[in-house]
Amino acid sequence: MRLSESETSFMEYVKKMEAFNEALQLIYWDLRTGAPKKGVKQRSQVVGVLSNEYFQMSISEEMAAFIAKLYGRKQELPELVQKTLEECKRVYDQNKKIPPKEYKEYVILQTEAESVWEEAREKSDFSMFKPYLEQLVHFNKKFIEYWGYRGNKYNTLLDLYEPGVTVETIDKEFETLKEVIIPLIKNIQESENQPETDFLYQSFSKEKQKEFSLKILGQMGYDFEAGRLDETVHPFATGLNPGDVRITTRYDDCDWRMAIFGIIHEGGHALYEQNISEELIGTPLCTGTSMGIHESQSLFYENILARDRSFWEYNFEVLQKYAGRQLDHISIDEFYHAINKAEPSLIRIESDNLTYPLHIIIRYEIEKGLFNNEISINDLPEIWNNKYEQYLGIRPKNDAEGVLQDVHWAAGSFGYFPSYLLGYMYAAQIKNTMVKAIPEYDGLLKTGNLEPIKQWLSKHIYRYGKTKKPLELIKAITGEGLSAKYLTDYLVKKYTALYEL
Amino acid sequence: MRLSESETSFMEYVKKMEAFNEALQLIYWDLRTGAPKKGVKQRSQVVGVLSNEYFQMSISEEMAAFIAKLYGRKQELPELVQKTLEECKRVYDQNKKIPPKEYKEYVILQTEAESVWEEAREKSDFSMFKPYLEQLVHFNKKFIEYWGYRGNKYNTLLDLYEPGVTVETIDKEFETLKEVIIPLIKNIQESENQPETDFLYQSFSKEKQKEFSLKILGQMGYDFEAGRLDETVHPFATGLNPGDVRITTRYDDCDWRMAIFGIIHEGGHALYEQNISEELIGTPLCTGTSMGIHESQSLFYENILARDRSFWEYNFEVLQKYAGRQLDHISIDEFYHAINKAEPSLIRIESDNLTYPLHIIIRYEIEKGLFNNEISINDLPEIWNNKYEQYLGIRPKNDAEGVLQDVHWAAGSFGYFPSYLLGYMYAAQIKNTMVKAIPEYDGLLKTGNLEPIKQWLSKHIYRYGKTKKPLELIKAITGEGLSAKYLTDYLVKKYTALYEL
Repeated sequence: MRLSESETSFMEYVKKMEAFNEALQLIYWDLRTGAPKKGVKQRSQVVGVLSNEYFQMSISEEMAAFIAKLYGRKQELPELVQKTLEECKRVYDQNKKIPPKEYKEYVILQTEAESVWEEAREKSDFSMFKPYLEQLVHFNKKFIEYWGYRGNKYNTLLDLYEPGVTVETIDKEFETLKEVIIPLIKNIQESENQPETDFLYQSFSKEKQKEFSLKILGQMGYDFEAGRLDETVHPFATGLNPGDVRITTRYDDCDWRMAIFGIIHEGGHALYEQNISEELIGTPLCTGTSMGIHESQSLFYENILARDRSFWEYNFEVLQKYAGRQLDHISIDEFYHAINKAEPSLIRIESDNLTYPLHIIIRYEIEKGLFNNEISINDLPEIWNNKYEQYLGIRPKNDAEGVLQDVHWAAGSFGYFPSYLLGYMYAAQIKNTMVKAIPEYDGLLKTGNLEPIKQWLSKHIYRYGKTKKPLELIKAITGEGLSAKYLTDYLVKKYTALYEL
Repeated sequence: MRLSESETSFMEYVKKMEAFNEALQLIYWDLRTGAPKKGVKQRSQVVGVLSNEYFQMSISEEMAAFIAKLYGRKQELPELVQKTLEECKRVYDQNKKIPPKEYKEYVILQTEAESVWEEAREKSDFSMFKPYLEQLVHFNKKFIEYWGYRGNKYNTLLDLYEPGVTVETIDKEFETLKEVIIPLIKNIQESENQPETDFLYQSFSKEKQKEFSLKILGQMGYDFEAGRLDETVHPFATGLNPGDVRITTRYDDCDWRMAIFGIIHEGGHALYEQNISEELIGTPLCTGTSMGIHESQSLFYENILARDRSFWEYNFEVLQKYAGRQLDHISIDEFYHAINKAEPSLIRIESDNLTYPLHIIIRYEIEKGLFNNEISINDLPEIWNNKYEQYLGIRPKNDAEGVLQDVHWAAGSFGYFPSYLLGYMYAAQIKNTMVKAIPEYDGLLKTGNLEPIKQWLSKHIYRYGKTKKPLELIKAITGEGLSAKYLTDYLVKKYTALYEL
């Protein structure tokens, strides 16, 4: 389709913005994978210039003029232009509504808060971090007023990460999860059928871990000509463009699960970014549609697929070879149970596949309370600890293993946490549809043939990038709205069998 | 010193340009050290956007206004502002004088020419490349008219790489070199004292080569917190900022000299960039002052320091350890002679320290002839081959080992070649002064204590970045102008002793 002159200039303008963005993403990748530390100070200047350029372009008079000219007749625009315009308008409104002075103050606050949080966590002293958290919440409350809200004020924050998902939906689904998971954990704890896990913590060389991980990435269909694997401290995946989607990991010599499941997790994110339709390149639509849908892909591969017994029927022998002799005397059933062990613990990022949802629900309930003035920041450590005791049966002994454990709030990322659990629910729900469409799903895992799974996900999710909203995707794939039922069914079935409940 | 408002905005403007430049340099580094190939197409778009932004800023009306406002009273400006302004004006004039349409055509021609050259070289067929070379020369002749010239037209091209150095100077010094080197090579060829070199070509694992190279880089004073070492196909060093100066290399399992001398070469470039004064960061002065001075540092370390017997008195035993057993039966004298072997050959980048200057002189004479209409492109292969026969006593059998061997002309880089040899001359001349200032020079090499040498070079060269012109630096250091005498003295003394002439 031929574009009009103003459509073409709009798309050119957006392409330039995306070029700045891609350069920024490469700089971030580099900073986290081995950039020399003495160059960081000046590199930060470069980041400042490029991100300011990008930001200014998003709220410029030129952008305003494009919106004014095109938005009124958006129905007539070619779909790609229309969706791009909608996304640009969303960002324009979001950025433009905050007074520049306040935004600047907020950015400075974020940086300070992160470094104070780090020290506070080290000293396990919430009182140090408290004044910063108060300011961060205060700013976000003002932003909510600037941005406006429908229903619950917290909806506006949710919308930043998971557009269309509201407190109403989350309350209902999270309640279902609690009702099922809390008693399930209790039953498991009382079961006599506890797995042996010592063999998971034996020495396994980094090189061998890497070789095995690369094999699994290959099975998953990760395209090595469109990506690379590097080391970092806090692993991540980054899609610079669909032809360049990089993943990173951290190796622990005495716990291979960190790198291997970590790589599978980032690999899930990467498959999404690698398989976005080429025509979206150079537009803001060329990325995953939301944090939750993105997480659904990493969690599908990490938690569901790679912790499935069938997956290990094919891969356990291979793992044994790479691991040296340490797994030789272990049966696949012992192994399968060990990697699916569930046990209440205090630290979210170290928790297992069954208790994880409760960690998220606690954070969600606290955030919602904060933004609806039902919780005072003074009471946070106490409320946090009480909830851990109530839901997981264990109580943090200090702030470091309690309210101070996550960086998210220090970064001002309120509304982000629910995405993790939305992702897990989406993953179970999508998988439920997938196995109907691919009845040989189990057989594919057992033969290491994961390609049809990636193809199916590409067809139904990946290729669309950001052109479909999360709930629109879920509806199109599964024929219904978000439902916790699939995750609870999955967890109940799996853990009942594992622990012989 | 406090800057006026317009001085401050000018320096801010320049800082922004340099930020774009640093981002570009990082992208180039990434493209050459492992960027996934499928992402390259889109990355080229990003390069296009950023480099166009940078280019447009260099010739913008804003830049013109800064120059108009500040240049008239440049004597009153603080030195840093003044030098920055001069550099910006130089670039402004250079870029502004070429009509945009012609420049665009030229950029496209360069890209095409490089890919045609590659194929032509593979097929050893100059006629394929000839029409492109004709166009490239034609464009550059027009540019010379746009830019203007003093004396010889070729001076304008020399000035792009080695400001202030003219045909007059080069003709004189290169003549001296020919007069000494050509007969010296003949004498060497007739000498009975030829070195054994078989032991240089035995297997030496990449990992061990790397470990040894890192040791040498450490001795040189390369700051590993301000740089890193990666692999690439065509090795290079890149200074993103003084805190981030990266070097790259290529390993040949059966010829360790490629990586080790290569790393020392790039290390020399890197020391320069790492030790530029911090106050120059964020200005166009924060880089080496010219191609020739830069090359003087890489060649000083690679050819002069690291091929000195004293250097190996300290390092040969270490090398033996890393090399396994293959060098155990070799004496330091046999080794020293082997790594300094001289013998006429056809390919510049594989040539030795003594014959190398003649390769450059041949290219210089041809370029000068081309731009003074004394040589026709039709005759190039013949002229090239005749010169090789005349100066080196050997004749290329085809275009691939003759006129097509270098990428420079395909890239439109006329006037670049002489920098290599200017660098070699500078290196010998600077070293002559250095050993007077550091009489214990030999002793330092013998004890692996190279730090004082780096300090001296930092003090006299590195810290100035681009604030001093090449000949100004040479004059300040050595008290005189460029002279080939120091290189000829060095070569005669060294090779006479080596070959017992």
